Amino acid sequence: MTTEPLAPGSAELIALIRQTAAPLDHEQVPLAHALGRVLRAPVRAAEDQPPFDRSAVDGFAVRVGDDSAVFRLVDEIRAGDWKPRQLQTGETVRIATGGALPSAGLQVLMKEHIEATATTVRVLRPSTERHVRIRGEDAASGQLLLDAPLRLNAGALALLASLGCAQPEVTRQPRVVHLATGNEIVPPETTPDPGQIRDSNSTLVRAFLQSLGITPRQHRVAEDHAALETALRTSADTADLLLISGGASVGPHDFTRVLLEQNGFDVLVSKTSLRPGKPLIFARRGTTLAFGLPGNPLAHFVCLHLFVRAALEQFAGLPPAPLWRRGVLAADFSADIGPRETFWPAFCRNDDGGPALLPLAWNNSGDLTSLATANALLRFAGHAPARARGDGIEFCPV
Amino acid sequence: MTTEPLAPGSAELIALIRQTAAPLDHEQVPLAHALGRVLRAPVRAAEDQPPFDRSAVDGFAVRVGDDSAVFRLVDEIRAGDWKPRQLQTGETVRIATGGALPSAGLQVLMKEHIEATATTVRVLRPSTERHVRIRGEDAASGQLLLDAPLRLNAGALALLASLGCAQPEVTRQPRVVHLATGNEIVPPETTPDPGQIRDSNSTLVRAFLQSLGITPRQHRVAEDHAALETALRTSADTADLLLISGGASVGPHDFTRVLLEQNGFDVLVSKTSLRPGKPLIFARRGTTLAFGLPGNPLAHFVCLHLFVRAALEQFAGLPPAPLWRRGVLAADFSADIGPRETFWPAFCRNDDGGPALLPLAWNNSGDLTSLATANALLRFAGHAPARARGDGIEFCPV
Repeated sequence: MTTEPLAPGSAELIALIRQTAAPLDHEQVPLAHALGRVLRAPVRAAEDQPPFDRSAVDGFAVRVGDDSAVFRLVDEIRAGDWKPRQLQTGETVRIATGGALPSAGLQVLMKEHIEATATTVRVLRPSTERHVRIRGEDAASGQLLLDAPLRLNAGALALLASLGCAQPEVTRQPRVVHLATGNEIVPPETTPDPGQIRDSNSTLVRAFLQSLGITPRQHRVAEDHAALETALRTSADTADLLLISGGASVGPHDFTRVLLEQNGFDVLVSKTSLRPGKPLIFARRGTTLAFGLPGNPLAHFVCLHLFVRAALEQFAGLPPAPLWRRGVLAADFSADIGPRETFWPAFCRNDDGGPALLPLAWNNSGDLTSLATANALLRFAGHAPARARGDGIEFCPV
Repeated sequence: MTTEPLAPGSAELIALIRQTAAPLDHEQVPLAHALGRVLRAPVRAAEDQPPFDRSAVDGFAVRVGDDSAVFRLVDEIRAGDWKPRQLQTGETVRIATGGALPSAGLQVLMKEHIEATATTVRVLRPSTERHVRIRGEDAASGQLLLDAPLRLNAGALALLASLGCAQPEVTRQPRVVHLATGNEIVPPETTPDPGQIRDSNSTLVRAFLQSLGITPRQHRVAEDHAALETALRTSADTADLLLISGGASVGPHDFTRVLLEQNGFDVLVSKTSLRPGKPLIFARRGTTLAFGLPGNPLAHFVCLHLFVRAALEQFAGLPPAPLWRRGVLAADFSADIGPRETFWPAFCRNDDGGPALLPLAWNNSGDLTSLATANALLRFAGHAPARARGDGIEFCPV
């Protein structure tokens, strides 16, 4: 049974997608494969950080408060050494940056502030600075260090490495299948016959997913009911997400919709109030989601960045985050915004005054030329009036 | 012969790196492997875009200005078809969105605005809108569409696909070798003995490079002259970039410096006026660059994002771009900034007023806990005074 909101706007549609998609299972992966993945289990310090008092400098360890003018050099500690001992007043050990101090209650005289012989150390410049990283000063054993969910960046991975969490628990990658339909499309490396054009949507979809670390399975399928049904049937069972790029022949939209319904999908949305993206289809079968993407490149671009991304973030286990930021227009903008909520490709510069958005020229929704330099989408409410350079504007980085 | 500027600041050091590094060769790669790579040869339209007049809607093609009330349906054109013909006044062909119009000088009546039988089309709502994407309206044959150098994003790749540029000319990937030294470090999956700590720098370096699409060769090497020299000798000949993470034992800095010099490198910088990152080493041998990175994690983080990145962008063939943006502090900041130019990890939120930067707590340069959530570095001039929430601040996204 299909319950379909009437032509949702972007906020309503994103909320519906969020509510429909469920976070995927998690799995353990090595750190080398965890960049950009989403941590699903919080990580605590298994031991004090640092695990022992460490010297922060190259120098000479002495008892705190030992104001001897000359010390007797009794040992040398290199990084990696473990030589516990109680220093007596007047005794010192040479120690390297990072070396484990031989006991608690010590300070380190910097090598620049002493004069050393083979057996003695004379203080040139007394100091009360300890130059010691005290055991547990970064984190105590058991302390929460990484809360979940968290998208793992290089710094987070380094922290996990330092904690010995070499196989973090992260969301598994979604299985994405992309079907590009259309009788007029040929692969990019092919010279089109008259009437044909090269398939750019497959490249767009793949690159969009690659930028999120996802490798889709992709198939180019003739816009033929039997062929598409076979492709859909064999894909949908093993996919978390099915993307269908509409072809341009008569009725592609109804075609995709009917096909999804015949294969047991609930079509939740088949029409939006957006420009571009009006004929976007969003459907569900069990935990599998499907998008029918309008065939033109700009609609693809918009729907991928706004809606497919929302589904992927929900799959990943990430909570909704604000999508739209504030910037200013870098040029006057007088394009006629029709009745629908409208998205416009733009180039975002970071000026002294903050993000400055230059709307890019595009002739029509089939025009790819502006997408090559677009790094932002502008959002306009329906019937938005013309605006001047310097006016505030909502944008989303892409 | 070594010529060494006296302890450069960050701008001076980045300029030196830019001037020392040379763009690498380029190569042709398939679109599926080109995301994030840098296009090195401009790309022009090999043919008009679109290559033929295409219908922008599902409807019925008629001669421009033909105001017949009823048309005779003489053919059907689906996307992918090529059926040139001259329409006569009163004739129409059914045409699908994207379909090739049978001749120039036509307009398309939207299917919603007519009433069709098997042989006739009656106009319900006359319109002068053409609903045609005219041949060449996006780009004329020979027009420059992608200028080089350009880092290829999903939109640029889609444009290349549509142009038939299936093997773009991009900068080859740099060969990066990373040597992690230090007798106290053990792999993350190992339980350290007393006095030992886990190696987090290798994970940090790998993830930083992975985020730029680069897979380094990595070796953990004992801080032993012979072992390091062997590792360096066998790596440097085949590397574009050599990264050495300093260990923490006595004299690691001089150790790396001497080792580089003994292996024929010019050490251009061995000391900066930065905090952290004071003992950063930058060296060159022929076209190979080397960085000796101070052993602590925050210095690694800063030096990778500011200086190693500058080298990699120069290798890629990209011109220098502004590094620092303007934001406001999201909290009072009263940490004592010493005499040196200082970088501080921060979390950047995008508030309504623009980027708001929350400085993260860090105890010491060995403290990794703040790096897990850092997505920006703040920059302070030496002796910068305390600042209040809402004050302007320079930052760099990381």
